Amino acid sequence: VNVAVARESATIKAVAKAANVSKTTVSHVLSGKRPVAAETRRIVIRIMDELGFQPNYFARALSANRSLAVSLIVQDLTNPFYPMLGRGLQQKIAEAGYILMLFDGAADPQATKSAVKTSIQRRVDGVVLAAPNARSAALALEKAGIPAVVVGATRTPRGLDWVSANDEQIAYDAVSHLLRAGHRRIATITGDLDGNPGLARLEGYRRALAEFGIGEEPSLIVEGFWSREGAATAAMALLRRRRRPGAVFCANDVMAIGALDAAHALAIGTPEDLAIVGVDDIEAASLVRPSLTTVRIPTLEIGRAAGTLLLERLANGRTTRPRHMRVAHELIVRQSG
Amino acid sequence: VNVAVARESATIKAVAKAANVSKTTVSHVLSGKRPVAAETRRIVIRIMDELGFQPNYFARALSANRSLAVSLIVQDLTNPFYPMLGRGLQQKIAEAGYILMLFDGAADPQATKSAVKTSIQRRVDGVVLAAPNARSAALALEKAGIPAVVVGATRTPRGLDWVSANDEQIAYDAVSHLLRAGHRRIATITGDLDGNPGLARLEGYRRALAEFGIGEEPSLIVEGFWSREGAATAAMALLRRRRRPGAVFCANDVMAIGALDAAHALAIGTPEDLAIVGVDDIEAASLVRPSLTTVRIPTLEIGRAAGTLLLERLANGRTTRPRHMRVAHELIVRQSG
Repeated sequence: VNVAVARESATIKAVAKAANVSKTTVSHVLSGKRPVAAETRRIVIRIMDELGFQPNYFARALSANRSLAVSLIVQDLTNPFYPMLGRGLQQKIAEAGYILMLFDGAADPQATKSAVKTSIQRRVDGVVLAAPNARSAALALEKAGIPAVVVGATRTPRGLDWVSANDEQIAYDAVSHLLRAGHRRIATITGDLDGNPGLARLEGYRRALAEFGIGEEPSLIVEGFWSREGAATAAMALLRRRRRPGAVFCANDVMAIGALDAAHALAIGTPEDLAIVGVDDIEAASLVRPSLTTVRIPTLEIGRAAGTLLLERLANGRTTRPRHMRVAHELIVRQSG
Repeated sequence: VNVAVARESATIKAVAKAANVSKTTVSHVLSGKRPVAAETRRIVIRIMDELGFQPNYFARALSANRSLAVSLIVQDLTNPFYPMLGRGLQQKIAEAGYILMLFDGAADPQATKSAVKTSIQRRVDGVVLAAPNARSAALALEKAGIPAVVVGATRTPRGLDWVSANDEQIAYDAVSHLLRAGHRRIATITGDLDGNPGLARLEGYRRALAEFGIGEEPSLIVEGFWSREGAATAAMALLRRRRRPGAVFCANDVMAIGALDAAHALAIGTPEDLAIVGVDDIEAASLVRPSLTTVRIPTLEIGRAAGTLLLERLANGRTTRPRHMRVAHELIVRQSG
């Protein structure tokens, strides 16, 4: 270890000189013990990189009791939402010298707990929770002195840093698009209504109709359980009514594809007899025929926002209040409505 | 650090007693300095877990110069191939107490190099390379004493541990399915032919035809460049011939959807006038209409196999010869052919 320290010291001097900062500043970047301005930190890290400076990582981590790593705990990595989230987060934290440890829950809600435990054991610097049981996970991490940022979340995670899409506005924008196109009898196929985003998207549907002075018709609100089959069944029931709706807002794209199935089975043309709008912009949205009009959630931006909140929390500790960042979405108009 | 060591020593005794092994064995599991039978290792880790034993991770890593982490370097995490690969790898390495560090290249071929550099700095124990420039990356890692396993790879990575699908056999099985259904004029829309899997899938197409005694017709082999648009253009040209093919094997599902586009535009029915078979079983394969007959590559198994090869290499060092593992695929017959 002495040799390593000696070699490092020599090089810290070279890094400090090239970066035009003091050796102390370089040491602070290395140890993480004292805050260093983000821009200075970036410059120092870039110069270390250019000079091929390789500090003894473990000795450094041991002295600082830090790993310069951020955990990303996701519910199900094979859901296309999460890879893009991971990319945004990695981009953001890499700028500050952190690497990404990934924990995929494989859709098992119990996996969050073990991922949290391992993250604590490995002394990660921070955690992004995009998984069930985020609230209790965040509290366990806080007890261990590790900040967490929650992404998505069914229940509003009060008191915690949180990034989400604006689900109410997403639905409002989708339904407003149908209203502007002249539709007045608009149904909605909802997701589960025991939390977000199902509830928030139903609220947005209601607000859009109310603003157009259209009274709510409870029979036009049916649950599709987020699945293609659930939505196909729900759409079948809607389309067999004597007065069927001219448009349907589906709370995700998979359900919109289920509604397309039902329309196709009943020889009802889309969009001429039934306009359909979804949410998510999954890969298949542009591949099905007719292609889906949908609302794209900027997952990359969500990941970057989570990284931003986490880096700020690492710099400020618990001195600032929890923040909620909402990322903007985008209506993608294609053929279905 | 002294306090931590004292507390650990006491607990190592308790772990050893509960696991019915010697304290030396527990120490070896912790330090990673000597091989411990996989089953014993699993038992010791489980008991540490049950007893809430939390060794000082960094002290341990420092003494062993190991991180108990495996890097997964992927070309593009948003390609659905990679999340499932990551899941399989995580499952396998978690059994042996390793965690996953993720490096997403975001489709930038230059990203591999920086991910390799960071992996070396962080003293990861091993690396799975599912990214471009795998060969030079593996050599750089080998110089740093870190074993690597290559997944996929355009060029055969001789001298390295390697996991792949059997691309030649995938194409053979897809085309044999069309031949068994009575088709004789079968075209193929290929991927890029400057390496695998494009070349191997063309070879499989050729072998299936040859075994049925059908002479190759060069005009039925067209390049689609792995893209929907490329394949649609290629299919248009095929379908406007005087004697058009009755079936087409597309080297991936995205190109099969491009072929569907072309058939639809020319009012050629699928499968009755043109049978179409793809490869991959992407999510959209079951969502498009008609749904795609395709070949599913068991990505989870590829990830697990990569983990198996890496763990074996960590146990054996360079004493055993490089291995190539091929995972089995599955023909999924749906509506398109």
